[in-house]
Amino acid sequence: MTTNTSFSWLHEPFHHDSYSTGIAIKQKLHEEQSEYQKIEVFETKSFGNLLTLDGKTMVCDLDEFVYHEVMAHIPYAVLPHFKKALVIGGGDGGIVRELVKHACLEQIDLVEIDERVVRVCEQYFPHCTSGLKDPRVKVHFRDGFVFIDEVIARKETYDLVLVDSTDPEDFASNLFTASFYGKVKSILAPYGVMMNQTENPFLDTYGIAGIYDNLRAHFAQVHSFSAPMLIYPGVYWSFGFSSHSTHPQELISERVEDLKKIEAGLKWYNTDWHQGCFRLSNFHKRKIQSI
Amino acid sequence: MTTNTSFSWLHEPFHHDSYSTGIAIKQKLHEEQSEYQKIEVFETKSFGNLLTLDGKTMVCDLDEFVYHEVMAHIPYAVLPHFKKALVIGGGDGGIVRELVKHACLEQIDLVEIDERVVRVCEQYFPHCTSGLKDPRVKVHFRDGFVFIDEVIARKETYDLVLVDSTDPEDFASNLFTASFYGKVKSILAPYGVMMNQTENPFLDTYGIAGIYDNLRAHFAQVHSFSAPMLIYPGVYWSFGFSSHSTHPQELISERVEDLKKIEAGLKWYNTDWHQGCFRLSNFHKRKIQSI
Repeated sequence: MTTNTSFSWLHEPFHHDSYSTGIAIKQKLHEEQSEYQKIEVFETKSFGNLLTLDGKTMVCDLDEFVYHEVMAHIPYAVLPHFKKALVIGGGDGGIVRELVKHACLEQIDLVEIDERVVRVCEQYFPHCTSGLKDPRVKVHFRDGFVFIDEVIARKETYDLVLVDSTDPEDFASNLFTASFYGKVKSILAPYGVMMNQTENPFLDTYGIAGIYDNLRAHFAQVHSFSAPMLIYPGVYWSFGFSSHSTHPQELISERVEDLKKIEAGLKWYNTDWHQGCFRLSNFHKRKIQSI
Repeated sequence: MTTNTSFSWLHEPFHHDSYSTGIAIKQKLHEEQSEYQKIEVFETKSFGNLLTLDGKTMVCDLDEFVYHEVMAHIPYAVLPHFKKALVIGGGDGGIVRELVKHACLEQIDLVEIDERVVRVCEQYFPHCTSGLKDPRVKVHFRDGFVFIDEVIARKETYDLVLVDSTDPEDFASNLFTASFYGKVKSILAPYGVMMNQTENPFLDTYGIAGIYDNLRAHFAQVHSFSAPMLIYPGVYWSFGFSSHSTHPQELISERVEDLKKIEAGLKWYNTDWHQGCFRLSNFHKRKIQSI
């Protein structure tokens, strides 16, 4: 943090050695070292509360709705069955808050490795964690990789797996491997969908083409779209949509009608945007292909 | 600039008092005070050359293609006549470089208030200014407002007016007024299109709803889309498309065929992306409406 008159600036130059984002901070509200990472919460000058993990911006009141709405509602619009969902990571609860808006969902398993993330978010982001109280939701404080192995052993399947991970570093790097995607495929119903965050293709810190190669190794339908996350490095954020047989642009008409009923309460998602977002620029298309 | 080991960081906290972008700089290549503004060129660590005007990031090798391609090719895909274009601002030449790819264009007038911007870009961004040598291009070192008054007096019209302005501050603030948009409308053919940059709706420093109100005061068709500009504050950048009668999503099939022929050489634009980009999120739709 560098001092600037009455406010401090929180910068993230370590995300990328050529580009950084600065957010003006009023005060630090919380700081702890959990078993897995350093958890901090800041009160920003203009964007509400901000959660960082090991210094990386994770959730902010300003833009959390973008990420959480696209992850929950895009699959709802296209999945013929939408009863069982698994969320890996996402301890802030934001994706679950959006998922519970869909009455047909019967079971939501949230697997977050770090219980302290959930507890801290309950205190500082109660509008994100509110969905965790829904009776259909079960929170598991476990390693996602191990949890999935147990699901495989039980021969259980999900309609939907959402991977809400940090960057491909440290303990989260497993969640971007072909091996992990193979495991996810084996616990998905034949029409099932996996979605995940796939980093910023402009900064391309971790090799986005490699992430998509790993997805294509296991799924016949691998698609990508972007949605802006102001607090993430370079803002232009990409997401993956992978399935054996479900196409992200073939919306189901009854689902579109359902989504229209809740559209007034959604801050980002609508089905018109959904239909446009998979139409990629040359830049985005080329970045997710191996050369 | 703050020092960070072997590189400096160029930050723009003055753009917005709560958010800033930092770009790692190797060295300053050029600095001068022109009649209108301070012009600087930096060699960045990873993104090529970067032009700033009064300290604001304007053009960078990293992402200049996004802005320039969308401004030139979106109107080409939808305009029934595409013979005369006027570019206000845009002294870097990037938009003109894209416009000259269209053989049917007969006349391109570039009106840039500051000749020094063109001269500096000729030296440091020759791939941007290359189109200025095209025999159809005439560069006028004039105030855009005054130039348009003279066009009105001559009862001349254009098929296309592209406003490539800086932020609504100082001498550029005129270019966001209802009065200016009224003048533009009066020099456009009935089907003619005006496009302009309309700032970042997340940071919303200048009141984006007001800009669109000013556009709606004169044009029946006022639409918006976004494209990422990594070097601009908050990256998620909005653009306006305004016309009396031309709709941005009604692409002309022969134009689509033409554009497909040059698509391999385009870094951002394709007609599939074009058809998707006007499908707005709830956030974007609500931001450009007055409450």
